[in-house]
Amino acid sequence: MTTRLQVTTPTSQYPVYIGAGLLARAGALVREAGVEEGARALVVTDDHIRPLGYADEVARHLTAAGIPAAVTSVPPGDGSKSLAMAERLYREMLSAGVRRNGLVVAVGGGVVGDLAGFAAATYQRGIRFVQVPTTLLAHDSSIGGKVGVNLAEAKNLVGAFHHPLLVLYDVETLASLPPREWRGGMAEVIKHGIIGEPDLFAALEASPYAEYPGPAAAERLTASACQVKIHVVEQDERESELRMTLNLGHTIGHAVEHASGYRLNHGEAVAIGMCLEADLAVRLGWLAAAERDRIVEVVRRHGLPVTPPPDMPFEPVWAALQLDKKHTQGGLTFALPRAVGEVAVARGVRPEDVTRVWREMEERRR
Amino acid sequence: MTTRLQVTTPTSQYPVYIGAGLLARAGALVREAGVEEGARALVVTDDHIRPLGYADEVARHLTAAGIPAAVTSVPPGDGSKSLAMAERLYREMLSAGVRRNGLVVAVGGGVVGDLAGFAAATYQRGIRFVQVPTTLLAHDSSIGGKVGVNLAEAKNLVGAFHHPLLVLYDVETLASLPPREWRGGMAEVIKHGIIGEPDLFAALEASPYAEYPGPAAAERLTASACQVKIHVVEQDERESELRMTLNLGHTIGHAVEHASGYRLNHGEAVAIGMCLEADLAVRLGWLAAAERDRIVEVVRRHGLPVTPPPDMPFEPVWAALQLDKKHTQGGLTFALPRAVGEVAVARGVRPEDVTRVWREMEERRR
Repeated sequence: MTTRLQVTTPTSQYPVYIGAGLLARAGALVREAGVEEGARALVVTDDHIRPLGYADEVARHLTAAGIPAAVTSVPPGDGSKSLAMAERLYREMLSAGVRRNGLVVAVGGGVVGDLAGFAAATYQRGIRFVQVPTTLLAHDSSIGGKVGVNLAEAKNLVGAFHHPLLVLYDVETLASLPPREWRGGMAEVIKHGIIGEPDLFAALEASPYAEYPGPAAAERLTASACQVKIHVVEQDERESELRMTLNLGHTIGHAVEHASGYRLNHGEAVAIGMCLEADLAVRLGWLAAAERDRIVEVVRRHGLPVTPPPDMPFEPVWAALQLDKKHTQGGLTFALPRAVGEVAVARGVRPEDVTRVWREMEERRR
Repeated sequence: MTTRLQVTTPTSQYPVYIGAGLLARAGALVREAGVEEGARALVVTDDHIRPLGYADEVARHLTAAGIPAAVTSVPPGDGSKSLAMAERLYREMLSAGVRRNGLVVAVGGGVVGDLAGFAAATYQRGIRFVQVPTTLLAHDSSIGGKVGVNLAEAKNLVGAFHHPLLVLYDVETLASLPPREWRGGMAEVIKHGIIGEPDLFAALEASPYAEYPGPAAAERLTASACQVKIHVVEQDERESELRMTLNLGHTIGHAVEHASGYRLNHGEAVAIGMCLEADLAVRLGWLAAAERDRIVEVVRRHGLPVTPPPDMPFEPVWAALQLDKKHTQGGLTFALPRAVGEVAVARGVRPEDVTRVWREMEERRR
């Protein structure tokens, strides 16, 4: 079985295929999406994922479908989201004979998707681009068209909005995820449940997915989470108000991730962020305490942390929070839950409320 | 007096102001275009143009209008169209406090516009961008949204379509152009006459502009040439068929420019390209010989070369021609005149016709 979702924005329209065995259909689906025979492709993956064979399988099926495809691999990790690495990809596209009618295929997680998508967005003023996410976390980043690289001074400072031609999400690739990475991805699934799918959230309460549940359940789970992201992106392509709700858990999450020196993975940091931001929402009178408790409990039952590591002081978290681009002189800005299934943007939040929430968390933990 | 033209494409709409004294109106016009008070700007120019004071004047007027503006300058010449230089601009935008509501202002010629435009297109996924051309050649490149940088291996390989918020063309800046640069710019004006303004072309026949003619005449001249470019861009934003007519003179022109080791400037190379492509059009039965003679005569009367330097052999020109991206296996592709005022795309042109045109030019010159 395959789920086919559709993304429709003012500037773009594309399908998201979710299911088992999709890697083998890459050639046919890319041709169906309008890429002509003889166009050339560069498949980009990373050195951790390359040995699993996914990128080479995609390249083989593209080539068999009349789209000669080369494969390249970048070092794993956020360090590969750089202009220097984008430059390497431009050169490899040139060597692979990729022209304006060609395409870039990203096989991997968010780093590979962001980097390869940026290279596609800027090569010859923009060529087509296919996302083949192979992590649970990437169900989120592969949809919505945000691509980019970092400068040493600032993450994602350089980038573009460049929607993929299609997204191929072969859920069988998720079976090979290390358990900690699966759980990290679940943090974004939980987030999407809180933002816009109370049924998904209720399913997670009833029967948590602390590990890979097999292809059929993984397909349902990811399709449901993707649908929330699609809905938001369709309403608000360029990140104004609504798209900011996707920041749930991320404002405190990014600060905690940074303060941990990236020992916490992104999903773990977002999990902590969601719990603390739920506390903040209770404090501001936005959220009932019982709803907050449901959120914390679901996070916990998926094997994710609900508080920061005990040795993490507040000061570096606070310093990192100050840098958030959303904040204005009138106070801090957060995406906060009003209920499970409803998130809104809170502006002008007073610093002392954030401090208090952190201190109370420390009290409780004692 | 100021001329106000309007560009309307499917994705963008912006004014092109042409006239004297526009630098002093930069602040007011940028505010009028919707940039809010407190937004920050980076003004980019080059080391040749900086001492003329244009960039600093623009920055002063922006700052006075409530848009604090910093100025930066890059080395002159095509070498500055690089990813490394874009990276330098990102850092400077960051230091200048440019945020998503901020803008980049390009003050200079095509290199500055392409580089600064690319940086604007990719900084924080795209911020606003103002073109302030100060060369005659840049009347062409400042309109249409093509921005980008070079790789060592290929010019303009990396780029984006990113339309400016507005174009401010202060014709008084043209008074300071060295005569050879003015004449080079006239090649593109002549080209626009041939493509779509027979009245402009007739005016150039009647009274050539081999040097800067004062602000009022410069305004009429550039407005008329800009209007041709605008018309084409409006019909064909993303360079399919119609936009290719803008390549008139450029297919042979680029090859000759390259073969000269860039001793010919761009306009001179395009002038030679227009004359040889007119010969080719006559040979193919597209153009009456009398029309070709009109074109060659106008080029000559503007102090531009009508044939390549006598010491230029055909072989490197031919080698450079082969690299043109427009060509297919079925033959060469040129934008060729059918008459003064009408240009179309010729496909499948046989290599021997191009060779013959070159050899006949050599015969005539002997």
